[in-house]
Amino acid sequence: MPVLVMKFGGTSVATLDRIKRAAKRVGVEVAKGYDVIVIVSAMSGKTNELVGWVNETSPMYDAREYDAVVSSGENVTAGLMALTLQEMDVPARSWQGWQVPVKTTSSHSAARIEEIPTENIMGRFEQGMRVAVVAGFQGVSPEGRITTLGRGGSDTTAVAFAAAFGAERCDIYTDVDGVYTTDPRICEKARKLDRIAFEEMLELASLGAKVLQTRSVELAMRYKVRLRVLSSFEEQSDEAGTLVCDEDEIMESNVVAGVAHSRDEAKMTLLSVADRPGIAATIFTALSDANVNVDMIVQNISEEGRTDMTFSCPTDQVARADKALAAAKADGVLNFSELVADTNVCKVSVVGIGMRSHTGVAAKMFRVLSDEAINIKVITTSEIKISVLIDRKYMELAVQALHDAFELDKAG
Amino acid sequence: MPVLVMKFGGTSVATLDRIKRAAKRVGVEVAKGYDVIVIVSAMSGKTNELVGWVNETSPMYDAREYDAVVSSGENVTAGLMALTLQEMDVPARSWQGWQVPVKTTSSHSAARIEEIPTENIMGRFEQGMRVAVVAGFQGVSPEGRITTLGRGGSDTTAVAFAAAFGAERCDIYTDVDGVYTTDPRICEKARKLDRIAFEEMLELASLGAKVLQTRSVELAMRYKVRLRVLSSFEEQSDEAGTLVCDEDEIMESNVVAGVAHSRDEAKMTLLSVADRPGIAATIFTALSDANVNVDMIVQNISEEGRTDMTFSCPTDQVARADKALAAAKADGVLNFSELVADTNVCKVSVVGIGMRSHTGVAAKMFRVLSDEAINIKVITTSEIKISVLIDRKYMELAVQALHDAFELDKAG
Repeated sequence: MPVLVMKFGGTSVATLDRIKRAAKRVGVEVAKGYDVIVIVSAMSGKTNELVGWVNETSPMYDAREYDAVVSSGENVTAGLMALTLQEMDVPARSWQGWQVPVKTTSSHSAARIEEIPTENIMGRFEQGMRVAVVAGFQGVSPEGRITTLGRGGSDTTAVAFAAAFGAERCDIYTDVDGVYTTDPRICEKARKLDRIAFEEMLELASLGAKVLQTRSVELAMRYKVRLRVLSSFEEQSDEAGTLVCDEDEIMESNVVAGVAHSRDEAKMTLLSVADRPGIAATIFTALSDANVNVDMIVQNISEEGRTDMTFSCPTDQVARADKALAAAKADGVLNFSELVADTNVCKVSVVGIGMRSHTGVAAKMFRVLSDEAINIKVITTSEIKISVLIDRKYMELAVQALHDAFELDKAG
Repeated sequence: MPVLVMKFGGTSVATLDRIKRAAKRVGVEVAKGYDVIVIVSAMSGKTNELVGWVNETSPMYDAREYDAVVSSGENVTAGLMALTLQEMDVPARSWQGWQVPVKTTSSHSAARIEEIPTENIMGRFEQGMRVAVVAGFQGVSPEGRITTLGRGGSDTTAVAFAAAFGAERCDIYTDVDGVYTTDPRICEKARKLDRIAFEEMLELASLGAKVLQTRSVELAMRYKVRLRVLSSFEEQSDEAGTLVCDEDEIMESNVVAGVAHSRDEAKMTLLSVADRPGIAATIFTALSDANVNVDMIVQNISEEGRTDMTFSCPTDQVARADKALAAAKADGVLNFSELVADTNVCKVSVVGIGMRSHTGVAAKMFRVLSDEAINIKVITTSEIKISVLIDRKYMELAVQALHDAFELDKAG
């Protein structure tokens, strides 16, 4: 029988009633003939409680013990979900990470899945079991210790299972009903997308549309796992939610799929840097060593052997960046006159695979912002994305104007 | 280095502060030179919460899923205890049942420990680890599924580890400071015992002195594990609490060690039973099949081929006993005129290994009760125990009178 993976996040299993509701959705898919692998998160609030205890006990905690403690929330939900399904006469059992086993690296609290053997669960499917409920977010290291995949890791667990079992689809049940052309809280014309390409979703996810964890989308793209994002709080049809899939499955689409924004960006400029070969490497190695996530990078034209170097990073990493660059200057490996931080900026991006074949998207974007008298501070582009840094106070205006201009309220 | 097992119950690890307090006790033993195995229960209330969820989800639950859910509480405490010890610079790590592995039978929710391999933990002790924190109450079945040992199972886990590792002693930290000659709430002269023999403790435990689980005492007796019961809420010396040990270690002692009582007893009498061979087997097989825990059994002298058969069982099993015997009568396998239940009784017992060599204990007990005008309804005796059923209203009086008569307020 075809395999379907269904993942339920913390709010979807927050109470026994919600677990029952989720189990009914699983029952619907079983009735259609699927063997189902259900991936569950901890009941919402539980993981935070456990993390709080660990932090209070030991601020510089041993990550192996952290993993042993925080993984327990998913185990509870997995057992309760299996029991709920059994009450509905659906043959089901729970698996904890080490039982499958979900083999991961030893990077505790941030482990990567290396292998998911399928014999165990497939054997049970062949014997008539219809649902395998698996505790998400966790695995087991080569040393036999419990690992966790990092926050939001249950999405990654779901996609990895879908890939390993050759699932027809991986349905991610969450508290939103799909992926939107932009943030509906900012732009009331925001429209739910029926389909979106992996690449587009990846750009949107990393740009702050927090529907899916970036890692899980990357994994889905690599293994061509069709992902569906849908709400666990509404009655669902087969066409509900948003399907994240290969671009080949998307027949017609707008050139631009969506407008993303990110509020917590800072623009940092190093003034009068000595312009010599290797200088960029020096700067960004220092930042990388200090765990600063650099996003955009722009280098101005050089004058008299000096240049200005601009980059952006999350607002809460400004102090760290400052310290790392000051240290590099003190060590004599880097020479600049001043580091200027502008924390009053935001990033707005338009994303769409149609840009590959359509020209003029960038020109149109700049024209729209210019018509609204919004000054562009930094520009970067990729094959399917154009991003600009602008003053934060213009963020809503920019998003709404771009959404209108690219007619995102109309289906492509 | 010698190994010490320390077990902390739910109230002793109910909060992060109490876990810290318990960890300090562990630190004291480590400083003395012990390698310590710490067995922890779930934080108090947690297991009840989980059991409640399981029961609400599925009243006739799959015990395998029950075990997977309810075992999670101990995992949390084990990780937090290991982190607390690490914060105190005591090298420690946590083990879940399957990691040791604590190999049990497949009787989910009531599994028995079959084997505890020691290489894994001993190897870590040899490498310098000083404390192994083990989640109590749980193990793993031959099928690789999580099992639990039944309520109070953490005491059993502790004794089993002490036996497997040849520990010098197994300290059970709880919310009472030791074993008393009788219930201090009933008799203010009750005195804490410094030492008590396994056999005596076993009789007291099964008679309702709820300090230690009966199973754990049986196991300790079989493997000669010295058990110490002491409070986690007081500063402790090496001589604190009560040592449960082999009688050879008890030099001088009272003939009677303690007076036990049990409030929830019912006396059931089958009137005019046909007295033929096999009739007792028929009656008690029917009761056993209905899961009635029969305690005392008395058969009266037979007259004209009929006899009366009296037995006692817990009050809340009277209805079940009634039903089972009525069914046997309806089936024609049993013939009696009437079943009379008296639920207004209680059991009072005197226990002491000294009875083996001292005569007259029973006579003295009956005389004391008679002097207080207390009527004895049923009597049973074992080598080291004499129990009587009496009217419940006389329970306190009987306990106090016996405690005085056997001078239990004075050390032997």
